[in-house]
Amino acid sequence: MSLLIVGSVAFDAIETPFGKTDKIIGGAASYIALAASNFTKRAKLVAVVGEDFPQTFINHLQSCSVNTEGLQIKKGEKSFFWSGKYHTDMNTRDTLITELNVLENFDPIIPESYQDCEYLMLGNLAPKVQQTVIERLTKRPKLIVMDTMNFWMEIAMDDLRKTISMVDVLTINDEEARQLSGEYSLVKAAAKIQAMGPKYLIIKKGENGALLFHGKEVFFAPALPLEEVFDPTGAGDTFAGGFIGYLAKTDDVSFDNMKNAIIYGSAMASFCVEKFGTERLVDLKEEELNARINSFRNLVRFNLASV
Amino acid sequence: MSLLIVGSVAFDAIETPFGKTDKIIGGAASYIALAASNFTKRAKLVAVVGEDFPQTFINHLQSCSVNTEGLQIKKGEKSFFWSGKYHTDMNTRDTLITELNVLENFDPIIPESYQDCEYLMLGNLAPKVQQTVIERLTKRPKLIVMDTMNFWMEIAMDDLRKTISMVDVLTINDEEARQLSGEYSLVKAAAKIQAMGPKYLIIKKGENGALLFHGKEVFFAPALPLEEVFDPTGAGDTFAGGFIGYLAKTDDVSFDNMKNAIIYGSAMASFCVEKFGTERLVDLKEEELNARINSFRNLVRFNLASV
Repeated sequence: MSLLIVGSVAFDAIETPFGKTDKIIGGAASYIALAASNFTKRAKLVAVVGEDFPQTFINHLQSCSVNTEGLQIKKGEKSFFWSGKYHTDMNTRDTLITELNVLENFDPIIPESYQDCEYLMLGNLAPKVQQTVIERLTKRPKLIVMDTMNFWMEIAMDDLRKTISMVDVLTINDEEARQLSGEYSLVKAAAKIQAMGPKYLIIKKGENGALLFHGKEVFFAPALPLEEVFDPTGAGDTFAGGFIGYLAKTDDVSFDNMKNAIIYGSAMASFCVEKFGTERLVDLKEEELNARINSFRNLVRFNLASV
Repeated sequence: MSLLIVGSVAFDAIETPFGKTDKIIGGAASYIALAASNFTKRAKLVAVVGEDFPQTFINHLQSCSVNTEGLQIKKGEKSFFWSGKYHTDMNTRDTLITELNVLENFDPIIPESYQDCEYLMLGNLAPKVQQTVIERLTKRPKLIVMDTMNFWMEIAMDDLRKTISMVDVLTINDEEARQLSGEYSLVKAAAKIQAMGPKYLIIKKGENGALLFHGKEVFFAPALPLEEVFDPTGAGDTFAGGFIGYLAKTDDVSFDNMKNAIIYGSAMASFCVEKFGTERLVDLKEEELNARINSFRNLVRFNLASV
């Protein structure tokens, strides 16, 4: 099934305890598209970049069968740029620079050829922009997945609540779930957030895995214990891209298949953090992915008989 | 198989966001014995209390088939007492009072009838005392499991390293694993700690589950997502008691069976935190435990075909 991906395509400059980069490719939609392209050849991108954005990366997306007809290139303008520095624990970071540039007035135009999309992935963006995308689709997709972050809870809570009410799956991290719900217990937070609209909630816990909630059902996927987390930038987006890519490929939105999609998302994220930026994702082999899925299976499998 | 449990039997006074207690039953060995008694009727306790300790709890242990011949009751002395207050996140706490009392000069005397023990659980105590227990056993147990904490890393690292070198399984939390190994990555920490002696390492991560390492093998057990963590005191000890109790019952120390033991330990710990102190453990029903094991199975089960 075809998959519409909306989000930022941008530049990042990253510093971790292992080193630092100059401007490299970043942005939620870049990670989502690269991850999803491992599962579907029918991904379609809506995003905006400036004249400074390298054609080589756009060519690479196309070579991965990502349709870039909806990628606007703004003449005379600059791409979104974020720079950040991670602390030793890699779970916290300081933002050093944020230059909105083309994102400031992003008007997400949906090409006519995208209107057949059955799956929609709304990467982290202003909630108002995410909402506009939903409204501009002539037919509601079968599944809408939305990512967001604490920033929007602080400056645009009303817009955020409105957009959240329109989606099927919300993905946020544990701190954001607590902030959005006002509940410390993630079980209570999940119930409150589902009452806001999304029938499914994914709570991402970084190196501590991810939880999928749906009514009274809950599924937990661990993160793979890694020797080294080199750069966590984009791990959540890569997770989301693997998740929705797998769902679009299998075209099955049951709770059981979402579990599988979360395992694939977690596997993709485990690759993402092994190198700076998108580096590890651009040359990922199918055999590597399959081997990692087996690692996840072995990590949690136990053989206690049912009692 | 018979199981020797050594550790503190004591009083705690606890404050959490949900309330506070007066002096209640606490101590690592109390939790371990209560948890293990769900699996084996051949648990034997070595500990020390003062004249102030209630006979009712000793009677309760006996009613759970815990042999208390090795429980020393010191006339004219007071039991170990700890008081602490948990923060909102329940992962951090302040110690308000520590009165060593009888623990200050604890000489762990092993009754002759205990010398047949095949399994040994060393609850958190001064490493020198733990070492003395091992040395006083005429035959080395089939499996020695040791718990410890950061406190001993700060004041008795040499003793601690010596004792760690004598055991098969070490259980510590993630921060302690980092402190003991000097490695931030838990995978690297696990390799370094195994090189210190224990062939198996369990890293407890509280609400984020537990990892079992053995050479290149790794197993992850999640914690059950709970509506409310009422009081985390003793959860790690309860986990250890369920773990070794299940191993003593099944008498199988393979890696695969240790996975099962960790699931049982996690299930026991999930009950422990539901009420203050040992309250939830003293009336636990077998059906409740079985139901919770099924919850763990459902929590992590996914059905991706092998690739």
